[in-house]
Amino acid sequence: MTAFTLGIDYGTNSVRAVVVDCANGATAGTCVFPYPSGDHGVLLDPRNPHLARQNPADYLAGLRAAVHGALADAEGRPGFSRDRVIGIGVDTTGSTPLPIDARAQPLALDARWSQNLAAHAWLWKDHTSASEAALITEAARRQAPEYLAPIGGTYSSEWWWSKIWHCLNVAPDVFDAAASWVELADYVPAVLAGANDPRAIVRGVCAAGHKAMYSDTWGGLPSKAFLARLDPKLADLRDRLYEKAFPPGRPAGTLSRTWAGTLGLREGVPIAMGGFDAHYGAVGSGVRTGTLVKIIGTSTCDCAIAPVADRIRDIPGICGIVNGSIVPDYFGIEAGQSAVGDILNWWVERVCQGGTALHAELSREAARLRAGESGLVALDWNNGNRTILVDTRLTGLILGQTLHTSRAEIYRALIEGTAYGARAIIERMQEYGVGIDRVVCCGGIAEKNDLFMQIYADVIGQPMLIAGSPQTPALGAAVSAAVTAGARGGGYDKWDDAQDRMTTLKEKRFTPDAAAHAVYDELYGIYRELHDAFGGVAGAAPHLGTLMKRLLAIKERAVA
Amino acid sequence: MTAFTLGIDYGTNSVRAVVVDCANGATAGTCVFPYPSGDHGVLLDPRNPHLARQNPADYLAGLRAAVHGALADAEGRPGFSRDRVIGIGVDTTGSTPLPIDARAQPLALDARWSQNLAAHAWLWKDHTSASEAALITEAARRQAPEYLAPIGGTYSSEWWWSKIWHCLNVAPDVFDAAASWVELADYVPAVLAGANDPRAIVRGVCAAGHKAMYSDTWGGLPSKAFLARLDPKLADLRDRLYEKAFPPGRPAGTLSRTWAGTLGLREGVPIAMGGFDAHYGAVGSGVRTGTLVKIIGTSTCDCAIAPVADRIRDIPGICGIVNGSIVPDYFGIEAGQSAVGDILNWWVERVCQGGTALHAELSREAARLRAGESGLVALDWNNGNRTILVDTRLTGLILGQTLHTSRAEIYRALIEGTAYGARAIIERMQEYGVGIDRVVCCGGIAEKNDLFMQIYADVIGQPMLIAGSPQTPALGAAVSAAVTAGARGGGYDKWDDAQDRMTTLKEKRFTPDAAAHAVYDELYGIYRELHDAFGGVAGAAPHLGTLMKRLLAIKERAVA
Repeated sequence: MTAFTLGIDYGTNSVRAVVVDCANGATAGTCVFPYPSGDHGVLLDPRNPHLARQNPADYLAGLRAAVHGALADAEGRPGFSRDRVIGIGVDTTGSTPLPIDARAQPLALDARWSQNLAAHAWLWKDHTSASEAALITEAARRQAPEYLAPIGGTYSSEWWWSKIWHCLNVAPDVFDAAASWVELADYVPAVLAGANDPRAIVRGVCAAGHKAMYSDTWGGLPSKAFLARLDPKLADLRDRLYEKAFPPGRPAGTLSRTWAGTLGLREGVPIAMGGFDAHYGAVGSGVRTGTLVKIIGTSTCDCAIAPVADRIRDIPGICGIVNGSIVPDYFGIEAGQSAVGDILNWWVERVCQGGTALHAELSREAARLRAGESGLVALDWNNGNRTILVDTRLTGLILGQTLHTSRAEIYRALIEGTAYGARAIIERMQEYGVGIDRVVCCGGIAEKNDLFMQIYADVIGQPMLIAGSPQTPALGAAVSAAVTAGARGGGYDKWDDAQDRMTTLKEKRFTPDAAAHAVYDELYGIYRELHDAFGGVAGAAPHLGTLMKRLLAIKERAVA
Repeated sequence: MTAFTLGIDYGTNSVRAVVVDCANGATAGTCVFPYPSGDHGVLLDPRNPHLARQNPADYLAGLRAAVHGALADAEGRPGFSRDRVIGIGVDTTGSTPLPIDARAQPLALDARWSQNLAAHAWLWKDHTSASEAALITEAARRQAPEYLAPIGGTYSSEWWWSKIWHCLNVAPDVFDAAASWVELADYVPAVLAGANDPRAIVRGVCAAGHKAMYSDTWGGLPSKAFLARLDPKLADLRDRLYEKAFPPGRPAGTLSRTWAGTLGLREGVPIAMGGFDAHYGAVGSGVRTGTLVKIIGTSTCDCAIAPVADRIRDIPGICGIVNGSIVPDYFGIEAGQSAVGDILNWWVERVCQGGTALHAELSREAARLRAGESGLVALDWNNGNRTILVDTRLTGLILGQTLHTSRAEIYRALIEGTAYGARAIIERMQEYGVGIDRVVCCGGIAEKNDLFMQIYADVIGQPMLIAGSPQTPALGAAVSAAVTAGARGGGYDKWDDAQDRMTTLKEKRFTPDAAAHAVYDELYGIYRELHDAFGGVAGAAPHLGTLMKRLLAIKERAVA
């Protein structure tokens, strides 16, 4: 019998549902629902550029609309019928925590809180909690360095505890009103499963391990004693969160009668453990030992896996190494760059005030330049550095301009800057024993921007392969759903089998040019000098290492 | 009797003649002639962005057209008649040397050489001779450090010997064909005086002292022994140049019968010693002890004077300290920034692809920002650094960008960058005993850009005064002509008297805002850290000090 799974991918601006054929991973139907609220789905605060929230109502409206649309799109495809949908997988952005009430409903859906931005979902790219992140890092370094070891040595303002603590500090009424908090990745499966109590929500180890300092090694979340030193209310909250988080493969629940009715699917269909888009994107790209999967979009997420048996060391500056966060029995290793496509969009849209046509024009011009010809080098830190410096308070730098420097040269230099950042991540992994002999790219830029991909191949010195699916996170969630259903349910018992059958590579690939690679070796050396000096790497250039932060402090005083 | 003098100002893109009333400095007539050749008067080489030449035919056509136009414009003004023109003064860009033949005619006017760019005038901003400049600096440091002391310690690629030697290296046929070389500032007075032999050209100490390592202290130009070690042909050339150069005040000659006929002026009218635009601009701005005159345009030239009796020390990195180069019996002190308005033009025209309207729009937006609000800092080195690092092979840097940074914020940061550069020059002068208690600005930007001037006042912490005349170089040349004519000729015997009567300040001035100045003190500190690190200042950051040059070397290999 032909079987299908649903992969539902919650992105920054929209949610997409894909109906996937379990036999070969082919898309049987798909539908995108752009979030109606805010600026392309993001709630902003004109007084605070660091704030980025989302309206949970958009998640629910999107769940209905995107799944309905995808199923409708699949109707009539050979072999498809709604009762052949054997599982549902969900991936989301993260860390995107939201406060919920005692019935597991988002506070923001309650009229009392609907106007309060703190009661909404705290989107991954919300950077309001920089000071909390710094204090958590400091406290952990002193009291519990083991908490930081698997998450790169620095706790980020993008993550769970920073955001929740910041909520407590700036909106204590919201904090007090919350019965619990939940990651978006766990919230959506819980909705489908009909959870009506925070304790009924099954938590995935992907979000817990990468963002909430969860590990079985120390008995779950950080200790109450540790949290109490931050704020006693955080220690109290721990009791209202969860004891245990799980890797994918086992179900987060089964489809509730209500949602089965709403979507026209069978009640009781297994729902896969929720995971982050990048992690499921890695699954959908066919991740295996030695493969780095790069999901390249506005930002970039890099994922790899390593057998738990290899007992790899902690890797400084790598955001996360979590047992079972991508597939069971492997460490899931996550790294990333906080702005990649966003830097190009900044240049084209904000500075040059153009659109898609200008992207294309600058790409054409930039493609005519040879490696090194612009004389420019850029640091790719317009949105901070996630890996390997783990510092959101770093900023951009462009160096080498003359009076002749063109906008296309800068466009290329910005692409190159992100490629150097990508190489720094790979070198850091290799330095700590995670060999990378295969790079598979996916995401909008990997699909569409040949110049970008060729520069990456030339800078990194490895071929850039492209994932076969344009929707690897949704495909990965669908793969997870097929494994969760198991062979008896019409899916697979083994991850390897599911990935082999359901994921592919494109024939098109980008191979490094030896001459360009040699030039980029030199330029990468220069990038690293700037990176280490301005990134505050010990011993590089003590004064310059604080310079970007001093400028930000002056800026904050000027704006205040 | 009412008397008038003519000031003729040779700029980068045009020549302007002004008829000035000697009683009060008022303009009686004016005319601008844009050079017809090349790109706005500059001959370029698409294969070499460092090359910038001019066609001497433009100088002669412009002499006729601009003077005719200015005299025609003055006709009918009360008291004016052509026979009341008592002197002519000329100022030009520099160092702008041109090769001439045995009749003192520019080689480029000879059909045999007219297609050879090396036979044309080597415009001040021609940077083709960087390697020759470095070798001259090195040789002088070893063999004759006294040559470098009064010119800032580094010989520039913009200057006389670098350019002539580069001509010898790349176009030996042109070098061999040249009977002599002459600075544009000396050439035009010689044309008016009817000189038809290189030895008949009277040389001004302004060009000689600032650009050709001329000083009476060591008997004029550099010794033949020194030049012979560079190249024996340069030593030979020394015999065909000049023994003596003179300060302004004495005539460079008198108007020839031919040119008197051409222009409709009296034969024998005295012609003032030629000088550089900045130096005569300082005169036209009322320079006196303690005053810094800033001529702010595409680039900036800073001039001050100090009594010879003060015996000021040499000032490292200050381009020139030359006895009598501005007015007699004072050291003329020259500094400058190689790109100021040009950096804004680069941003608006090259990057943002706008024009005058966009300059105005970005100025309006940038004016709404407070000091420090952009979070940006820029190095103003898109065309190298003339003072205080004296290094043409430095490049630009912008630091602090986020994804929100706007083009107006960068526009403001670029203005601020040039203001920090201006402050570095003033601080260097003060550090070496040249007190600056009064800053008078002139030039297009000082006239028109209030935001720019306010930022300068706030960064430097002194009021910015504006010269009364919009044409201070031409006015200064006219003042010099009035002094050259002397009281008996209808002018003045003393410089002070001439300047007091013929120069003014505008009522409008820009006063520092204390709060903004405090912020800029901090930002200037950050600028200086970057300046010293990337400028290669000893002890700052050894590796970064060579980084811009390493990028240029990679660029040159990529282009080759």
